[in-house]
Amino acid sequence: MPNTHIVKQFEEELKQIKEKVIRLGGIVESQIADAIKALTERDSPLAEKIIQRDHVINGLEVEIDELCLKVLATRQPAASDLRLITTAMKIITDLERVGDEAVNISERAVELNREPPLKAFIDLPRMAEASQKMLKGSLDAFVNGDVKLASKILADDDFVDNLNAQIFRELLTFMSEDPQTISRAMKVLFISKYLERIGDHATNIAELVIFMVKGKVIRHMALDE
Amino acid sequence: MPNTHIVKQFEEELKQIKEKVIRLGGIVESQIADAIKALTERDSPLAEKIIQRDHVINGLEVEIDELCLKVLATRQPAASDLRLITTAMKIITDLERVGDEAVNISERAVELNREPPLKAFIDLPRMAEASQKMLKGSLDAFVNGDVKLASKILADDDFVDNLNAQIFRELLTFMSEDPQTISRAMKVLFISKYLERIGDHATNIAELVIFMVKGKVIRHMALDE
Repeated sequence: MPNTHIVKQFEEELKQIKEKVIRLGGIVESQIADAIKALTERDSPLAEKIIQRDHVINGLEVEIDELCLKVLATRQPAASDLRLITTAMKIITDLERVGDEAVNISERAVELNREPPLKAFIDLPRMAEASQKMLKGSLDAFVNGDVKLASKILADDDFVDNLNAQIFRELLTFMSEDPQTISRAMKVLFISKYLERIGDHATNIAELVIFMVKGKVIRHMALDE
Repeated sequence: MPNTHIVKQFEEELKQIKEKVIRLGGIVESQIADAIKALTERDSPLAEKIIQRDHVINGLEVEIDELCLKVLATRQPAASDLRLITTAMKIITDLERVGDEAVNISERAVELNREPPLKAFIDLPRMAEASQKMLKGSLDAFVNGDVKLASKILADDDFVDNLNAQIFRELLTFMSEDPQTISRAMKVLFISKYLERIGDHATNIAELVIFMVKGKVIRHMALDE
């Protein structure tokens, strides 16, 4: 008979890992939203706040990593539980780097806010919204082991990539027509790249989720044979 | 008395993990070197070869990941062995993404090779060399648990970042003086960004190594108390 107390503790720990990953994701998402707000509303103090808040993300990443190691060492999980934990450890690395991209956006925002506005930002907020949604979806897919949702994220990435390409073409025309704008346009272009990179991280997470679930399926198949 | 046969098998598996990580690192390094060669020597067939070879990296990443999972499930390692394996699983994700950057460089090289040359590439090969060296160093640091070497990598990243900033400034002047060059200059700038990103991945690996070793130290300290 399995020790129900230990089983319950283990389940509680897995639940904790999932909850903490979602919490980290929530913080990272709000950092992206704030970074775009700091840019579009020319709010440099907000940008500075985002840069300072990055340590919260790093701290939570270490906390989750330590929790995962503790569970691996003390519970010796196998099969799908094992893969869930190692996937969580990889996902938080991606989330931490998304946090770094929010800092990058904030730094460029501070620089741009010192100069006259270039033009109204229309596509960047759309890109930010799309990449945030991708991030949220990829984490939901992780928590629920939802391959269908994860596959949807991979398709969404094309939307973000296309917006980035569109912004690139627009700014190229802008710079060609007025070389005075080059320095500012380049910074906007970098922000577009950072957002594209956030979409890439969400895609990475979605791929990790598919691999996590499919790996399980493959193992199950081997057992059935 | 511990079962020496099982202990030996386990040590053999840890050695295998390390060796495979180093092999993956070697392939990734040669992909970077070839990508820069494809650019500087305007060798588009080589660039296409690099793009096609990327699947080898992805395959080896999955292979190492599966090996790590197998060792975690069957050997139930603790303490520093556990951390070595989970660190390896994170490192290979970084290496796979460096491979993607080599593909990105190759794609831009193919595009640039279709147009007249912009100017001689001097700083990009230096950046590529530096980031390759960083990558190699970070993997040596991993295999030997060498915190001192890992810390050196963190400092080296400034060199790559500074080169990137310098290329950025130069190309900005270039574009301002002759807007005809903007489209090509932007592609060169992207390659510079990809190389900077490779330096970032090496830095990430070095940080993972420091965390791997220091985590062990912290645990040892807790045991001593």
